[in-house]
Amino acid sequence: MDARLPGAAAERVRAARPLVQCVTNFVAMDITANVLLAAGAAPAMVHAEREAADFAAHRSALLVNTGTLDPAWMGGMEAAIAAATDASTAAPWVLDPVGVGATAARTRACVRLAALKPTAIKANASEIVALATAMGFDGGKGLGGPRGVDSTISDTAAARPAARHLAAETGAIIIITGKIDRIVDSVDDGGRPVLGVVGGSPLLTAVTATGCALGALIAAYLAAAPRHALSNRHPDGDLHAGASVGAVAAAHACAAFGAAAAAAETASSGPGTFRATLIDALHNQRARDIDESVGVAPDWDE
Amino acid sequence: MDARLPGAAAERVRAARPLVQCVTNFVAMDITANVLLAAGAAPAMVHAEREAADFAAHRSALLVNTGTLDPAWMGGMEAAIAAATDASTAAPWVLDPVGVGATAARTRACVRLAALKPTAIKANASEIVALATAMGFDGGKGLGGPRGVDSTISDTAAARPAARHLAAETGAIIIITGKIDRIVDSVDDGGRPVLGVVGGSPLLTAVTATGCALGALIAAYLAAAPRHALSNRHPDGDLHAGASVGAVAAAHACAAFGAAAAAAETASSGPGTFRATLIDALHNQRARDIDESVGVAPDWDE
Amino acid sequence: MDARLPGAAAERVRAARPLVQCVTNFVAMDITANVLLAAGAAPAMVHAEREAADFAAHRSALLVNTGTLDPAWMGGMEAAIAAATDASTAAPWVLDPVGVGATAARTRACVRLAALKPTAIKANASEIVALATAMGFDGGKGLGGPRGVDSTISDTAAARPAARHLAAETGAIIIITGKIDRIVDSVDDGGRPVLGVVGGSPLLTAVTATGCALGALIAAYLAAAPRHALSNRHPDGDLHAGASVGAVAAAHACAAFGAAAAAAETASSGPGTFRATLIDALHNQRARDIDESVGVAPDWDE
Repeated sequence: MDARLPGAAAERVRAARPLVQCVTNFVAMDITANVLLAAGAAPAMVHAEREAADFAAHRSALLVNTGTLDPAWMGGMEAAIAAATDASTAAPWVLDPVGVGATAARTRACVRLAALKPTAIKANASEIVALATAMGFDGGKGLGGPRGVDSTISDTAAARPAARHLAAETGAIIIITGKIDRIVDSVDDGGRPVLGVVGGSPLLTAVTATGCALGALIAAYLAAAPRHALSNRHPDGDLHAGASVGAVAAAHACAAFGAAAAAAETASSGPGTFRATLIDALHNQRARDIDESVGVAPDWDE
Repeated sequence: MDARLPGAAAERVRAARPLVQCVTNFVAMDITANVLLAAGAAPAMVHAEREAADFAAHRSALLVNTGTLDPAWMGGMEAAIAAATDASTAAPWVLDPVGVGATAARTRACVRLAALKPTAIKANASEIVALATAMGFDGGKGLGGPRGVDSTISDTAAARPAARHLAAETGAIIIITGKIDRIVDSVDDGGRPVLGVVGGSPLLTAVTATGCALGALIAAYLAAAPRHALSNRHPDGDLHAGASVGAVAAAHACAAFGAAAAAAETASSGPGTFRATLIDALHNQRARDIDESVGVAPDWDE
Repeated sequence: MDARLPGAAAERVRAARPLVQCVTNFVAMDITANVLLAAGAAPAMVHAEREAADFAAHRSALLVNTGTLDPAWMGGMEAAIAAATDASTAAPWVLDPVGVGATAARTRACVRLAALKPTAIKANASEIVALATAMGFDGGKGLGGPRGVDSTISDTAAARPAARHLAAETGAIIIITGKIDRIVDSVDDGGRPVLGVVGGSPLLTAVTATGCALGALIAAYLAAAPRHALSNRHPDGDLHAGASVGAVAAAHACAAFGAAAAAAETASSGPGTFRATLIDALHNQRARDIDESVGVAPDWDE
């Protein structure tokens, strides 16, 4: 598994066809399901608390996304997470803390979910800083908080210290999405690099919920990664610069999504058609297309 | 009404513009509403329990779909069904038991809804087998259960015995969707044929909620069918091979949808654009396009 | 600010990038968010009651839409409105009373919301008549009530008397959408004109929730209008024929939307592709495109 070649990971997803349970927001459900299908994974939008334990027998990964958060959904989120972290029905799970920092209730909910030790946390730079700050990070002053669901921090590099804090607090891989996606590994050994993924399209921010869909795609890639990625604690000698299997899988999901976005931009005439051509591009992309389009590289910041 | 010529049924839907009340899942709402509009019907997404009785004065048919099922919605589903089965506000209603078999709670809910005697039940082969099994069918061993919301049974013919059982238990027309859609008539006279609809596009399974949208379209076709289709118990001498008016209407909905899908595939470059061209094709299709594209035929299996 | 030149208003929206909080229905969320983004505004789908007060610090305008109404959402709507009408966190807010008149519960809810004094009420002609009638208007006899969510009144002019009544009762600007959009100013001085907006595309009614999305766009235009538009009580000498700033802003939103629809129709082959090209057209439109495509004019009816 070579971190520089995400195409092979995309093929693994198609071969494994992982079923991703999504407890996600109303806005994102359609595009999330279609992104998963286009990438060769299978979606299941199952949010009811009473179905969580049973459904764990079917799903290979879980996404929990806090957009359009409603107190009535918290029980279902926590039950699905409990199943994902139970030894007998364990699965990788991704937290997308949409809008953390915008309201006290949202922040509390996100902190509570992050404390349940997700495999990965994916968010934009402002959300990463807001969540880290709510969990004790002290270096976020001067950085912008979220504006609704948008980031006010233009360079994801500024959120790396906050991401490191979050990784240390939760044990999660942290994916900071932006013009350059940056993946901060969990820091149990203190020496893991940050991976950077360059590519994509500015139209991604012109279409709602593309970031939410990427969160689900990351869950699919984690599910299809070699088994020991689940624990996220077994560095693999073959990995690029010592990043964990999980961090590399997350980077590959970002790379596949970015490559599709770049191709989709060319085929579109604005964000409306881009929403459709993005799905086409994901569906039609081959391993080589991804490898040639998007770069994954270590991104040392010190 | 000739079962072999679905185009005339499509014209009846445009002429009648039936209002279809949909109590359906969050993922499917947008595409379902747009499919109904494109076919010349009118959608209304009304799910609140307290509105069900009043709204019965407006709607011509009802769809109940269990995707993204939430206990809080069961009351609304049952109230809408109560109005649809009340003599004074009767209307055809379609049950789409999405995900039945995936969890015990989902299966219980679907059995409860099926016992309320829908006019039609539409589902993929695995769901038909799972629902029939939960209602006493004993021949489903060796057939695959649902995988999330997907079928693991590739040939709908394998689900015919289960569909017959369901038809006998509920009095409903059973539509098994797949590469070949099969419509099993209610079996009060024991001698009705199975109708087969051949056509469509493999891209239908690459886009989320197309099957859910078809369920709503079937409801529209049932509403626009000659009045005695409602009881589903009055075979019409003119009908193809003795199938009931309701079964033929359901087959025609499948045929119109399949013809649109075939046309849409040609106009698309992947599932993203297909989602749009499917709606275009439904909107632009003429009776002749359907008749020439998709075959409806008796499909005797014994 | 010249009412005849809506293009400048579109540029103001892009410059201000107003964040519009939408408490809206499940069907409309995706297209509403994408319409706002395409117009240069920012969407936030935040409906929880406990987040309303906090979120008021972020949003520039509020949309409340009663499609897929659920009693559980009323508290969130009222809390968001309370924040929008509180002096310290005031913002323009738009009510879209989807389906008012279809059921007693829906009508009661819409009257309750309208009584909270929205900045603007946007609805089709049948809904305007139904809401006005529920609030004491006596001249709606012979006009059609809503059919589900559709209007049965083809000419918006027929709803002007009802709109005047609503404006008097609530102090709101009333936008009657249809082939010609008509904007009835609040009538505190009794002498304000009706503005008419001619343009758009018949495909708008073939795609679900385009009207809902327009409601959110109106909220964005109100937010970006000169500050004294908020009170809607300060006629501006520069305004076209004495219409208030708010009424002109609403007309401009209709004009921008209509111009995009006209361009999108040309680029589409049916309602499915139109849904995408509508977003493209909004995203790509320049001030001049709007000014040349759609007319805003006084529309005296007596």
